[in-house]
Amino acid sequence: MIQAEIITIGDELLIGQTIDTNSAWIGEQLSLLGINVRQITSITDSEEHIIETLDKAKQKAQLVIITGGLGPTNDDLTKDTLVKYFNTRLVENKEILSSLKQKYENFGLPFDDVNKAQALLPENCIPLPNRRGTASGMWFEENGIVFISLPGVPYEMKGILQEEGFPRIKKHFNTPKVIHKTLRTIGIAESSLAEILKNWEKELAENNIKLAYLPSPGFVRLRLSAFDATEQTEKIITSKVKEAYRLIGEYIYGEDNQTLEQIVGELLKNNGKTLSLAESCTGGTIAKLITSVSGSSEYFKGGVVSYANEVKNSVLHVSTEVLNEYGAVSEQVVRSMAKNVCKLMKTDCSIAVSGIAGPGGGTEEKPVGTVWIAVSYNGKVSAKLFRLPYNNRERNITVASNFALNLLRKKLIQ
Amino acid sequence: MIQAEIITIGDELLIGQTIDTNSAWIGEQLSLLGINVRQITSITDSEEHIIETLDKAKQKAQLVIITGGLGPTNDDLTKDTLVKYFNTRLVENKEILSSLKQKYENFGLPFDDVNKAQALLPENCIPLPNRRGTASGMWFEENGIVFISLPGVPYEMKGILQEEGFPRIKKHFNTPKVIHKTLRTIGIAESSLAEILKNWEKELAENNIKLAYLPSPGFVRLRLSAFDATEQTEKIITSKVKEAYRLIGEYIYGEDNQTLEQIVGELLKNNGKTLSLAESCTGGTIAKLITSVSGSSEYFKGGVVSYANEVKNSVLHVSTEVLNEYGAVSEQVVRSMAKNVCKLMKTDCSIAVSGIAGPGGGTEEKPVGTVWIAVSYNGKVSAKLFRLPYNNRERNITVASNFALNLLRKKLIQ
Repeated sequence: MIQAEIITIGDELLIGQTIDTNSAWIGEQLSLLGINVRQITSITDSEEHIIETLDKAKQKAQLVIITGGLGPTNDDLTKDTLVKYFNTRLVENKEILSSLKQKYENFGLPFDDVNKAQALLPENCIPLPNRRGTASGMWFEENGIVFISLPGVPYEMKGILQEEGFPRIKKHFNTPKVIHKTLRTIGIAESSLAEILKNWEKELAENNIKLAYLPSPGFVRLRLSAFDATEQTEKIITSKVKEAYRLIGEYIYGEDNQTLEQIVGELLKNNGKTLSLAESCTGGTIAKLITSVSGSSEYFKGGVVSYANEVKNSVLHVSTEVLNEYGAVSEQVVRSMAKNVCKLMKTDCSIAVSGIAGPGGGTEEKPVGTVWIAVSYNGKVSAKLFRLPYNNRERNITVASNFALNLLRKKLIQ
Repeated sequence: MIQAEIITIGDELLIGQTIDTNSAWIGEQLSLLGINVRQITSITDSEEHIIETLDKAKQKAQLVIITGGLGPTNDDLTKDTLVKYFNTRLVENKEILSSLKQKYENFGLPFDDVNKAQALLPENCIPLPNRRGTASGMWFEENGIVFISLPGVPYEMKGILQEEGFPRIKKHFNTPKVIHKTLRTIGIAESSLAEILKNWEKELAENNIKLAYLPSPGFVRLRLSAFDATEQTEKIITSKVKEAYRLIGEYIYGEDNQTLEQIVGELLKNNGKTLSLAESCTGGTIAKLITSVSGSSEYFKGGVVSYANEVKNSVLHVSTEVLNEYGAVSEQVVRSMAKNVCKLMKTDCSIAVSGIAGPGGGTEEKPVGTVWIAVSYNGKVSAKLFRLPYNNRERNITVASNFALNLLRKKLIQ
């Protein structure tokens, strides 16, 4: 397996001003290409420290990816350090120069000497054009080891790697054919999945298909990966995915990069259904998730965040008798909220949530984490009680919101 | 200055499954103590690699903090590796053992040999008790260099450092007296702040007070730091903060760790005012921010997410004439939304937002980023137009939501 190291440069990483998300993304992408990342090193903008770290990295790695320190200001030292390290000199790159001029013109900004310096590149590197910014990526080769230097701005770095870096890496290292397939589950614990999938997992291992459980609150993703994959492997993965649907299909809400809010949105759109929301403890989080999808105005009409009981009564017309008799966190109240918000906003479906997010407000009968969710679909209302195990307000809100979306999803696929 | 290195251990960090937030937090805390973090290294669970990294770290650092790899399962190698590295042996720690037993009893879980192994600790370490989990922290000293090993679970790691680690570090290294003061601004660019504060900054530098600009979308934090601070320094900082309020006071919404939603919440509570919301393009994000503060039910009654124009009309009673004549993104519509939601939910104040978050929906007259915000306060409505420069849906929504909260804050302090 090809060994890689990632070096991220910048004082802001060491004093906690910026969380290094670049190396996690690069690490994931390289591992998807079948390349092993053995170390990530974050260091300050210092020539001595950069050189020392490059020296160490090349002892163990065939690929070294460096991010940061490519800005035009004095505290950015990476380019000059690389010139020294690879014993070369800076030369003006005409293509980069004219594309930079164009960029500054488009923005109506003056093109001065500081900006012009961004067109000076080490003579022995292959420039990797940056379509989203002004600092070019650079590809160096020395004794069969590849060094790639990239700007630290995440979306510029990602753009350069996706358009220029990864295609070159694949070709240069002749990386193996890799297949990944991800199944996304909700509402089942990792340990319970592992129990159900015990035998299913064995057959994967026998066929050299790796399985990773990737948990996050409420969710577990299952990622199948095959390196040096043949047509036969592809067939096996397809058949194992089918089998997974038979075993744990009720928990699978999507595949690969699909999010729950995207899937619910697509189902609503495809079924020609409109949605409204009545949120109490989730306080607008479900609305935020739904509207984070661009184009959601096609199926989402609106919602009521009925935090106070008066609002449940005055806007959503939940009767005071029901509120007083059963309490705001009850089956009766969420059913009424779901039914009435559909009527109020003239929608085909709705979701209603009422619960205790914490840290305060819990009782013996209804402890923190108690959440009632109702879904109204084509005039029929169903409700379900959840007892979330978290003593954390944010987590209860997030998980309740996703469980609510999942209840609607299940109605939409029935 | 004391030099420190951070080593984070775990395969999940290298394949991008987990973003390493631990080292950013530790880096921030150490720099606040006046300790310089020179390198962060993330490595796999491998004995050889751990030892090699420790060897390198101790050549340059007086303090080495290691996180991860302390679980009870076979793939966690840190403890055994440290035993080897410090040439010691594992012994059972009676206090830790009895506290572990207690924890398992409380959870109603069986206390087996695997769990019991968590009470075995290297003979020559000072145990740092973990009140939130089962893996103890460990403090080693060798030739004047301090090594601290901690579990990788963020809230356990933070708890141990705050309760046990940092007090010991301060004492052991006799760290300098450090003062930090943060001013939080909104609605002004970093470069404009720097222009206004040019002379103000000079005097800081003359008194050895460091200034950091910490920008995030819509916000800039200004952090003043003084190391080896005397009473005189404290006085200077107090007077410079006062001066900053004179220069940029209109942009400062809070200090230190206060968030905008907390401050707005406190102002509402202290003034005895209640709040309602009418959100269109922000789609519930303001409600989510407000309700993320525990205890917000004291002042927040509820909100309407009026995504569709029909809902603006039927629920919020914005007249169809106004909607048709001016369009949903207009001063007239947000004024009407703000006024009517106050009436609907019987509150003292409200915020209303309507805009174009993108990527679609922009026109020449109202491009993506156009946002109208209205605030109703004690029966009076004011409105303001923002033209946000982002071509990014998520960023437009976040910044518009925070600008909306800030408009209300300004009314509350008038």
